[in-house]
Amino acid sequence: MKQSSFLLPTLRDVPSDAEVKSHQLMLRAGMMKQIAAGVYAYLPLAKRVIQKVENVVREEMNKTGAQELTMPTLHPSELWQETGRWDKMGGELIRLQDRHNRDFALGPTHEEVITSIVRDYIQSYKKLPINLYQIQTKFRDERRPRFGLLRGREFIMKDAYSFHTTSESLDEEYQAMYDAYSNVFSRVGLSFRPVIADSGAMGGKDTHEFMALADVGEDTIAYSDSSDYAANIEMAAVKVEEPSSVAEMVELVKVQTGEAKTIEAVVSELKVETKSVIKSLLVKVDDEMVLVLIRGDHELNEVKLKHALEAKDIRFASDAEVEQVMGVAAGNIGPVGTNVKVVADYAVKAMANSVCGANEKEAHYTGVNAGRDYQVSQYADLRFIQEGEPSPDGKGTIQFAQGIEVGQVFKLGTFYSESMGASVLDENGKSKPILMGCYGIGVSRTVAAIIEQHHDENGIIWPYEVAPFQIHLLAMNSKNAQQKELADHLYTLLQSKGYEVLYDDRPERAGVKFKDSDLIGLPIRIAVGKRASEGIVELKMRKSGEMVEVAIPEIEELISNKVLELKG
Amino acid sequence: MKQSSFLLPTLRDVPSDAEVKSHQLMLRAGMMKQIAAGVYAYLPLAKRVIQKVENVVREEMNKTGAQELTMPTLHPSELWQETGRWDKMGGELIRLQDRHNRDFALGPTHEEVITSIVRDYIQSYKKLPINLYQIQTKFRDERRPRFGLLRGREFIMKDAYSFHTTSESLDEEYQAMYDAYSNVFSRVGLSFRPVIADSGAMGGKDTHEFMALADVGEDTIAYSDSSDYAANIEMAAVKVEEPSSVAEMVELVKVQTGEAKTIEAVVSELKVETKSVIKSLLVKVDDEMVLVLIRGDHELNEVKLKHALEAKDIRFASDAEVEQVMGVAAGNIGPVGTNVKVVADYAVKAMANSVCGANEKEAHYTGVNAGRDYQVSQYADLRFIQEGEPSPDGKGTIQFAQGIEVGQVFKLGTFYSESMGASVLDENGKSKPILMGCYGIGVSRTVAAIIEQHHDENGIIWPYEVAPFQIHLLAMNSKNAQQKELADHLYTLLQSKGYEVLYDDRPERAGVKFKDSDLIGLPIRIAVGKRASEGIVELKMRKSGEMVEVAIPEIEELISNKVLELKG
Repeated sequence: MKQSSFLLPTLRDVPSDAEVKSHQLMLRAGMMKQIAAGVYAYLPLAKRVIQKVENVVREEMNKTGAQELTMPTLHPSELWQETGRWDKMGGELIRLQDRHNRDFALGPTHEEVITSIVRDYIQSYKKLPINLYQIQTKFRDERRPRFGLLRGREFIMKDAYSFHTTSESLDEEYQAMYDAYSNVFSRVGLSFRPVIADSGAMGGKDTHEFMALADVGEDTIAYSDSSDYAANIEMAAVKVEEPSSVAEMVELVKVQTGEAKTIEAVVSELKVETKSVIKSLLVKVDDEMVLVLIRGDHELNEVKLKHALEAKDIRFASDAEVEQVMGVAAGNIGPVGTNVKVVADYAVKAMANSVCGANEKEAHYTGVNAGRDYQVSQYADLRFIQEGEPSPDGKGTIQFAQGIEVGQVFKLGTFYSESMGASVLDENGKSKPILMGCYGIGVSRTVAAIIEQHHDENGIIWPYEVAPFQIHLLAMNSKNAQQKELADHLYTLLQSKGYEVLYDDRPERAGVKFKDSDLIGLPIRIAVGKRASEGIVELKMRKSGEMVEVAIPEIEELISNKVLELKG
Repeated sequence: MKQSSFLLPTLRDVPSDAEVKSHQLMLRAGMMKQIAAGVYAYLPLAKRVIQKVENVVREEMNKTGAQELTMPTLHPSELWQETGRWDKMGGELIRLQDRHNRDFALGPTHEEVITSIVRDYIQSYKKLPINLYQIQTKFRDERRPRFGLLRGREFIMKDAYSFHTTSESLDEEYQAMYDAYSNVFSRVGLSFRPVIADSGAMGGKDTHEFMALADVGEDTIAYSDSSDYAANIEMAAVKVEEPSSVAEMVELVKVQTGEAKTIEAVVSELKVETKSVIKSLLVKVDDEMVLVLIRGDHELNEVKLKHALEAKDIRFASDAEVEQVMGVAAGNIGPVGTNVKVVADYAVKAMANSVCGANEKEAHYTGVNAGRDYQVSQYADLRFIQEGEPSPDGKGTIQFAQGIEVGQVFKLGTFYSESMGASVLDENGKSKPILMGCYGIGVSRTVAAIIEQHHDENGIIWPYEVAPFQIHLLAMNSKNAQQKELADHLYTLLQSKGYEVLYDDRPERAGVKFKDSDLIGLPIRIAVGKRASEGIVELKMRKSGEMVEVAIPEIEELISNKVLELKG
């Protein structure tokens, strides 16, 4: 492709509204244009990268025997009502009415549609297992679209759905997808970790997120420094089960703490350690109010609380609810003398003579002890793990990293098949709901994650497999006949050898061409300059910075060696 | 792909709601499932065909130097307001609001979006010409979605947009697209005609529709039996300019015609020929009422009327408007004695002593003659051409055929660039609005058109280039070890030679397998049956019906010869 006629509007300046590197670089490298908040056009350079990522995904999916199909974007509301998600999805589901006032959603995911297809066509266990996938534009009305392709409202996903009669078959497919995803993300050049994740409320069980490691990632990964344990921090179990305190109990005393309402203020007022204070939180768990106790220096993990209480829905009580239930504002509530059910993190079990709110204005208790002063109905692992704590698998200690979720594999179980009536007859002629798995890859997000991991101060550094072109050919002075002739020759030659070549034939200055070339970041740059008359050009590797002069007769071999190195 | 695990739900019966062959056969061959009216899932077999058609389109577009990009589906209303189409588009434009109550449309076409991209990035004539295209799902809320993929609400389009500084450059690109489209439709096996079409109101000029010939086509093509002239019947010019009548005029007489209000009734009542009656039609042309005269046996062509009067908008007057303007109901109106502007088709010029309404209840005139009894402000070509009339290019006579519009090329001119402010500086530093062309191919509709042209009573007959698999391998009795072994061997062998093979390994009866095979319609069928023990299988060509027994050592050569024949 000749750059003079290629739509590649590079920018010198960093766009002010782009916060993360991938967003900045995609705008600067002329890869995308915002059409509305979180809605982008992918310009030709980006389109080429997206197609390469899609092809890697397609190849790895096809290898597993998965079958590609395309489901529609317009979903009739009736299908989503069958699973109850029409109401549950809230503002993220984009809804519309057709000319006959029928309700539709724009598909953010396709469990309902695929289940409606499978229930119609598959009635016997003999047709299972099957895995059906598509690569498609999805829609989610994010409250705060941001970070370019990392959190958009219109994005490209690969989503796959598998169907099984036995949990062994589902386990097998889950592993096959896990492996396929590892292949995909390795091939596109991502440094990633599969991490244990939350299966949420949809009746699922096992699930792993594939996290591309990056500082801008919105997810925190807790991983062991000595094993392959890794989990989304929401799911990382705290290993230590604390023993009950054996310290001698002091007297329970009510003290005036004035305006002190936060842990920090109470610590400062009473001159105690943060870890001696009990944090009391009133939480609405389904229909019941529960008082949750956490050690002062710990943080409540709502996902763990939800799982521990087997709740469908939890939320913090409002200020008004706290006043009504506890008789005092949130800063002074505590477990002593309350009728509300109390649950506590394991760490609270080991606390002795601690401090908590007195359920009275401007007052706290000191010398508080469980058993004597208040009762706990349930101890559980309710807090976020912290860096430096032992890894839940018993090997090493926990470290944190930030990750971008680029994929997820998920055992759905029978939530969709039961609510939508998708069942098969088994070997014994008995009707059974179909077991399901689902497997997603954020294709456009993967492109952004690749850039987050592969760039320097001058621009993008494309991994070979997904580079929009492999070679950037620069005619340094396109008015010089010798240079132009040699560059034209190389353009034809290299293309005939199967390389994708972007040929900068523009009448621009050398400095502009070099800057754009670094910014666009193709793996191999060939500059045809002053030594063209001698039949010598300059080859530069974008990643290593290695630069060599090479005579034309040797260039083919040099490039094929360099490509072998890049493919590693 | 093994058919036992392939999602290919064939049906024996013709679905009752499918009116046309392509719709029936796609449902019966397990290619698609309706999710809502006009909204379909493309099952794996269809997906493979769609991908092949897309690849042909992509290859032919890339050959011309066009660049692929992807624009979003969500279009902010502001862009459509710039061209006025937000209001003009009516019910076919699917609209929605996001969570912040901002208006969006689901893109049915992308002139606004592409023009907004080009105006931002292209400021100089040096960056032109450029042609940008995408292959994408589009949305149009058809009032009556029907005929399966022929008229859906969610469909796949290739749309391209070109930008130019000179009309010569636009002409060149238009021709390049015309040629590329001819290549595309030839390669996918369609019998088609490019026909002159209506450029409508968008300020465009030249346009051709590519029509796949098919009885179910909703468009009528008027073509010459002796030249390559072909036009949408809306646009086919009537060549003959009729001379004024030279017959002797008889007396103008008002006659009572009672309840006779239609041409047929008047003809029967007055015992005259249909072609002696003037059909008078009151039409609202922009803000003016016009009385349009057509010979009784002719039909008014509204597109021609609109062009002849250079009107933005025309519509028939309502009953109330006719009463108000003409003082009588539609069945008795006529040009004699009216103050309304009269325009007439050329054929009316040659009429003498004719019949028309008398603008009086239950009365008509006979002996009516233009010039003496009424005045015509403008004669023009206002009627549909008829079969058997001379071709407008002077060669041969006109025949009619029905066609499915599968593509359109269109010189848009400056409508979008002017209303959206997309201009470039020319060689002299002068700002000029960019000239535009647009070029569409209905990808999913093309698949349906292929089936309309390529089927027999037993099923589909895929052209080789777009066949979902090239070879259908049938193990006639998969419980017979010898047959199974040989079929397995052929499956591996043929795939290793680069053929796409669908392998029917199901435990079904031979009759079922043969029926499904004919229905699915892959070009080459290989049945491994009783003579497997001798190393002999049966090869059948789906299209010709030719059937031969072949020994395994010869099968590769036979297939490659057959493929050469098919590629023809």
